[in-house]
Amino acid sequence: MSEFNNVSVVKKANVYFGGNVSSRTIRFADGSVKTLGFMLPGEYTFNTADPEIMEIIDGDLDVLLPGSENWLTITGGQSFDVPANAKFTVNIKTATDYCCSFLK
Amino acid sequence: MSEFNNVSVVKKANVYFGGNVSSRTIRFADGSVKTLGFMLPGEYTFNTADPEIMEIIDGDLDVLLPGSENWLTITGGQSFDVPANAKFTVNIKTATDYCCSFLK
Repeated sequence: MSEFNNVSVVKKANVYFGGNVSSRTIRFADGSVKTLGFMLPGEYTFNTADPEIMEIIDGDLDVLLPGSENWLTITGGQSFDVPANAKFTVNIKTATDYCCSFLK
Repeated sequence: MSEFNNVSVVKKANVYFGGNVSSRTIRFADGSVKTLGFMLPGEYTFNTADPEIMEIIDGDLDVLLPGSENWLTITGGQSFDVPANAKFTVNIKTATDYCCSFLK
């Protein structure tokens, strides 16, 4: 799916790490929420509340998932899951375009 | 308006200047198009096709508009218009969140 239809978009960006990570909140008719975001090269640690699916649209990164000691290499077209109430770290190699789905 | 409702959002980001500028394309039911974008500090020159209204949601910049020799200082809450088929340059002082409306 290249386009989300019949959605609401929050105008103001979500901004993290001085702007190196920014995203837009997308609300769906069924009440679910996703963010479409962009990350510049660097290392960032995030905390989850709900479980998340991180779909990488474009870019290259390594991710250290909760409970793991091994970095996973992820590239555009791949995704990774993060459990609720957990911490994960990404090391962005090339500017990365992503879609994050929050699962209830 | 803090949220756009009943719109379509193109999933893949528009990426410029190595990712220092990125945006998402928002399509409205009436056929009009806006982008919600983010610019990191730096100087960027853009070319317009249609006339544009650049609404600055947050951030600080100077803009050199077509035909002008004087930079205008713009901050969050302000906007500026750019004619069609023209060039404008922005000097982003602090990470800037914007909404660009394309006029037909």
